Amino acid sequence: MLVSPRNPLNIGAAARAMANFGFQRLSIVAPFAVNWMEAKSAVGAPDLLRDAKVYETLAEALAHCTLVLGTGSLDRRRPAQEILNLPDAAAQVRSVLALRSAPSRESGQSRVALVFGSEKHGLTSDDLSWCHALIVIETCEAQPSMNLGQAVAVCLYEISRNASAESAARLPLPPQPDSGQPNSGQPNSEQLDRLAGLIEETMEAVNYSTRGMRSANGEALRVLLRRLMPNEADLRRMMGLFRRILWQLAKRNGKV
Amino acid sequence: MLVSPRNPLNIGAAARAMANFGFQRLSIVAPFAVNWMEAKSAVGAPDLLRDAKVYETLAEALAHCTLVLGTGSLDRRRPAQEILNLPDAAAQVRSVLALRSAPSRESGQSRVALVFGSEKHGLTSDDLSWCHALIVIETCEAQPSMNLGQAVAVCLYEISRNASAESAARLPLPPQPDSGQPNSGQPNSEQLDRLAGLIEETMEAVNYSTRGMRSANGEALRVLLRRLMPNEADLRRMMGLFRRILWQLAKRNGKV
Repeated sequence: MLVSPRNPLNIGAAARAMANFGFQRLSIVAPFAVNWMEAKSAVGAPDLLRDAKVYETLAEALAHCTLVLGTGSLDRRRPAQEILNLPDAAAQVRSVLALRSAPSRESGQSRVALVFGSEKHGLTSDDLSWCHALIVIETCEAQPSMNLGQAVAVCLYEISRNASAESAARLPLPPQPDSGQPNSGQPNSEQLDRLAGLIEETMEAVNYSTRGMRSANGEALRVLLRRLMPNEADLRRMMGLFRRILWQLAKRNGKV
Repeated sequence: MLVSPRNPLNIGAAARAMANFGFQRLSIVAPFAVNWMEAKSAVGAPDLLRDAKVYETLAEALAHCTLVLGTGSLDRRRPAQEILNLPDAAAQVRSVLALRSAPSRESGQSRVALVFGSEKHGLTSDDLSWCHALIVIETCEAQPSMNLGQAVAVCLYEISRNASAESAARLPLPPQPDSGQPNSGQPNSEQLDRLAGLIEETMEAVNYSTRGMRSANGEALRVLLRRLMPNEADLRRMMGLFRRILWQLAKRNGKV
């Protein structure tokens, strides 16, 4: 998933690395229209580039993802989320992917997104607020910032590195979902956002934050929910609670 | 070490990956002059690109290297050398580099070269004949060929990956050189080539190969010497032997 990529060659390089390592689903968020058209129509572009989906916002692009990992360096940011080095992040991705029975790495119910920011500034703190964790590739202090296409290649290489051997030998078995409860896995980004919306509505209803602070609070809330990683059952309970609170508030205001 | 790279952007990307992962010595063999000047003069090019050395032949570029690893896919070649997957090759590189006391990864007596071919065809069989082994990055069968800049990034990432932890915990200690014999380590490419020259001279002197076969035999010989990995003491003995043979042959022909 590329957010506002600028250079068509980098978009092409990202797509090529995906083809090299067997990944299929490329999403582009808010691209610069001309550059995107140029990348898409390049000679020899892999099919997955032509099939890439374009979204206006990261929120839409991530709606169905259950594990969202941002990428970047730490030289200008102190994220609230967990910071993972690439080998650990890759192991986590593999353990989520191992849950699936489908041969494709990107089909199935749980969907992992790797999010790469634009060449100029990387992911913004708003972008990062949609991520469960931030992947950092260990580089030299003198030149920490990697080229976009190369960062994508290195991340996908690490995820597919020794995948079969490792998932058999070293990774702990992922917890089994409750039997008979198909919806008690990890909620996707859209579901988390519905809860965040309810909570924000509640905060507003109780005048918890001034109007000016609202967007900053929204961001902090998104981060919090992703750090907590509630499962779907938790989510349902929390949503039930906040709906109830909102209903009660409205009732007391005489609106119901 | 890049052999006849075509795209200035790829040369720049290779240099950037080197800067990212702390490597310093870039050599370019037989570049296309215009492309090379363009890459070298690009805005923001790292110092190591400006300091890169240019050679006419791979033989000259490798003269002082003791471990030479080619890179490529196996779809069009069946090399005689050992084929290493990237993690194993990286471990081998690290164990050689760990011998050195200098903080820089590229100074010191044993010098490791990673050789990348041109974008179009990769390394030729002649290029490969200078290599001790071929590194293959595991990729999808449908799209095995990686972009040059991305292949460089992935290789250097793997070499620097967990380098400190691994060299302490997992790698076997490299054999100590004989004490008091500073020249009994691994011979460099130039020394191996001197032996190869003597052997070829001998083959010619004994009419071992027809004139037409000579270049093919030379290539096979280079590969053989690199697979055997003689140390410097072995080399001195072998050279002594072949010098002796040649001298005796000449003597019998009445030339001495």
